[in-house]
Amino acid sequence: MRIELINTGSELLLGYTVNTHANYIAGQLAERGLRLCRQTTVGDDRQEMRDAVAAALDRSDIILITGGLGPTSDDFTRDVVAELLGRQLIHHPAIAESIRDRFRRRNRQMPESVLIQALVPAGATVLENINGTAPGLFLEHAGKQIYLLPGPPRELKPMFEKLNLPRRDRLDCRVFKVARLPESIVEETVAPVLKDLPALELGYCARMGEVEVRVLGDNLDEAERRIRAALGDNIFGVAGDRLEEVVLKMMAGKTLAVAESCTGGYIAHRLTNVSGSSAVFLTGYVTYANESKMRLLGVREETLKTHGAVSEATCREMAEGARRQADYALATTGIAGPTGGTADKPVGLVFIGLATPTQTVVERHVFTFDRETFKQVVSQYALDALRRELLRS
Amino acid sequence: MRIELINTGSELLLGYTVNTHANYIAGQLAERGLRLCRQTTVGDDRQEMRDAVAAALDRSDIILITGGLGPTSDDFTRDVVAELLGRQLIHHPAIAESIRDRFRRRNRQMPESVLIQALVPAGATVLENINGTAPGLFLEHAGKQIYLLPGPPRELKPMFEKLNLPRRDRLDCRVFKVARLPESIVEETVAPVLKDLPALELGYCARMGEVEVRVLGDNLDEAERRIRAALGDNIFGVAGDRLEEVVLKMMAGKTLAVAESCTGGYIAHRLTNVSGSSAVFLTGYVTYANESKMRLLGVREETLKTHGAVSEATCREMAEGARRQADYALATTGIAGPTGGTADKPVGLVFIGLATPTQTVVERHVFTFDRETFKQVVSQYALDALRRELLRS
Repeated sequence: MRIELINTGSELLLGYTVNTHANYIAGQLAERGLRLCRQTTVGDDRQEMRDAVAAALDRSDIILITGGLGPTSDDFTRDVVAELLGRQLIHHPAIAESIRDRFRRRNRQMPESVLIQALVPAGATVLENINGTAPGLFLEHAGKQIYLLPGPPRELKPMFEKLNLPRRDRLDCRVFKVARLPESIVEETVAPVLKDLPALELGYCARMGEVEVRVLGDNLDEAERRIRAALGDNIFGVAGDRLEEVVLKMMAGKTLAVAESCTGGYIAHRLTNVSGSSAVFLTGYVTYANESKMRLLGVREETLKTHGAVSEATCREMAEGARRQADYALATTGIAGPTGGTADKPVGLVFIGLATPTQTVVERHVFTFDRETFKQVVSQYALDALRRELLRS
Repeated sequence: MRIELINTGSELLLGYTVNTHANYIAGQLAERGLRLCRQTTVGDDRQEMRDAVAAALDRSDIILITGGLGPTSDDFTRDVVAELLGRQLIHHPAIAESIRDRFRRRNRQMPESVLIQALVPAGATVLENINGTAPGLFLEHAGKQIYLLPGPPRELKPMFEKLNLPRRDRLDCRVFKVARLPESIVEETVAPVLKDLPALELGYCARMGEVEVRVLGDNLDEAERRIRAALGDNIFGVAGDRLEEVVLKMMAGKTLAVAESCTGGYIAHRLTNVSGSSAVFLTGYVTYANESKMRLLGVREETLKTHGAVSEATCREMAEGARRQADYALATTGIAGPTGGTADKPVGLVFIGLATPTQTVVERHVFTFDRETFKQVVSQYALDALRRELLRS
C-alpha cells in the first residue's frame, strides 16, 4: 500500500514556514505501522496542485493533502480535487450552520466569504474540525482514498488522530542513538557485524553531536543484539529519546546545576523542556560577563586574569562554583564566534567541565560551527559527559 | 524558469527529522529573486528517487537534490542520477586526496568506504564542501541544470551560498512581523486597508506568539505604507528579523539581565544566539528552585510563602533582583505543565516582569500550550514587552 502526502501553501515554497506537517504526519503514520512513500509541496497554484494530485493518484493508494481549505482567495484545494475527480461541489447546510454557530458563540460578525467552506465535493465524508471552521474531507475514487486536511497545525492534528487509516503492526524499524561518535565511526562499528543478516535495511542519520542508526526489515532482534554489543555504552537511547531526558532519568534522586557561558542558557533550556526536570535541575547560571562569573560562581579574578575566561582553569572554577548547591554541575566556556577568536584561542575553542561529588573533569574541544550549531554540539557533549559519568558511578 | 527541489532521506519520511532544507533553500532562492515551484521528498529508495528525478527533469529547468552523497550504503544519489543521465562514474583523484588529507589533519584512520565519495559522474563539475568529505556536483543535461548537494545542513549551507544560480530582481514580496496580536486581529486590521489595491497577493502566517503578513505583487510601496499605518508599533520587523535581534539592537549601550523560572533558560538562549549579544546581555538566572530565587535574586521567603512562586509578587522581586546589576531585567514565573496546576493557579498561568530604571511592571497571562510552545510564547511576550518599553523611552 502506497501512501503519499501533498502539502500546499506558497509560504512553504517562499522560505517563510518550515514544513512541520510532513514530519508530524510521517511520524503518525509510522506509529500505525504505515510508511510514507513520498511527500510533495506545491504552492497556491491550481495547475501545479492539479498535476501533483493527479500524479499521486496514478501511483499511490492513499493521498493525504494538507492546506488550502480555508475561506481566503488562495484556498482552492477542494475545487481542484473536485474538478480532477469530476465531482460537483454541493452546499452542505450542516457545515454552514456550524460555521455560523462558531461566529455567534464568539460574538463576531461572519463574513459571507467563510461559507465557501461549506462546499463539499459530491460523495465526500465530512471530517469534523474541532479547532476551526474548515472541515476536513474524505473521498474514495477508483479504489483510491483521498484525505483533504486543514493547514493550521492545531486544526490538523486532532483531526488526523481520528482518521480511520489502516493500522498495521508497528513499522518494523528500530533506531539507536549515539552521542559523540562521528557517523563514519558508527558505520565502521555497526556495518560489519550486520553484514550476514539478510533483508535488513540499514540507515544512518548524522545530527549535530548525535548519530542515529536505523534498521528496518527482518531479524530485528538479532540486529539489535549485535548493534548493542558493538556500540555498547555509546548508545544513549532509541527512537524518540532525547539525551536530556535520558540524563534526567539517570539523575533521579540527585541534583544538578549548570553554569553556562558560551552555551548561553541552551543546556538549561534543554533540561527544562523535560516535564518534571525541576526535581533534579535546581539552578542555571548564564554568566556571559566576567563579573557574573566571579560574583555568582566564585571564579577568582586571578584565574580570569592569568588564564582568561575561556580556559581550563576558569571552566573548572565555574563547575565547582555551580556545584556548591547541587550534587553535580556542568560548566561551559568557549568562543561561539563568528568573532572573538585569537591565534591562541581560535573561534570554536570550548571547555566543558563536569563537577561530581568526587572530582572535577574538564574537556577541551574545538568545534568550528555556526553559533547555534556550536551551542547544540557543546550541549550534547556536556550532557553526554554527565551520562557517561553516571554510568560509571 | 522552473526550479524544483528534491530532498532525499528516509529519516524525512519516517518522522524523525524535520525538513529544514526545503525552508532554507526556498528562502535562499527568494533572496535571489527565484521562486521554488515544487518540493519533493523521497526516501533512500533507488526506484522512488529515480522516478522523482526523472519527472522533475521533464517539467523543470533547474533541479536541486539534497542528501545521499555520503559514504554509507544508503547514499546513492550520485549513482541514481548518473544512471538516469547515462553517465559513467569516474574516480576523481583530487577529491580522494582532499578526503585523505581531511582525515590526516584530524589524525584519524580513514575507512576505505569513504572513497566512494570521490566518484563523479562524467562531465560533472565538483562543488567544494568546506565542512565535510562529500563534494557537491553540478551537471548540465539537455538544457537542464542539476545540482547534487550534501544532506548535513552545515555542509549544504556554505555550498549553497556559492552556487552560480541565476539572480533576478528581488522577488516582489514583503513580509511584516507582528508580536502579540492574534492572526484574526491582524487580518481584520490589514485586509480592509488593502481592499482597493489590485494585483496584490495577501497572505498570513501565524506562528507561536508571532504573525507574519505577506504581500506579493504590484503596488508594494503603497501596500507597505498602508500596512505600517494600520499596524503601527505592533510591527517589530520584516522578513528574516528575529525579535531577539531587534530588541538587542534597541538595547545598544544598555545592559540586560534575565531571571527565568518557567522559561528555563530559553530567553537567555534566544538572546545569546545573536552574535555580539554579550555587549548587552550580562547574566541569566535560571531559578527553578525556590532556594535559588531567594539566594540569587533576593526573593523574600515571606513572599514565596504568602503568594507562592508563581505570583505577581514573586515575579516582581525576581525582576528587581535581576536588575541589581543591569539597566533592565526580564523575569518569568509560571506553570509550563503538563502537571503542577491547581484550581487557583491553572497550568499555563504565567507572570512576566519587566524592571526598568524607573519602574517594574508585571503582566499576567494564561497560555495553554505544550511545554515547548509555552516557553516560546512566553519568551515572545517578554521580549516584546521590553521592545515596547524601549520604544516609549
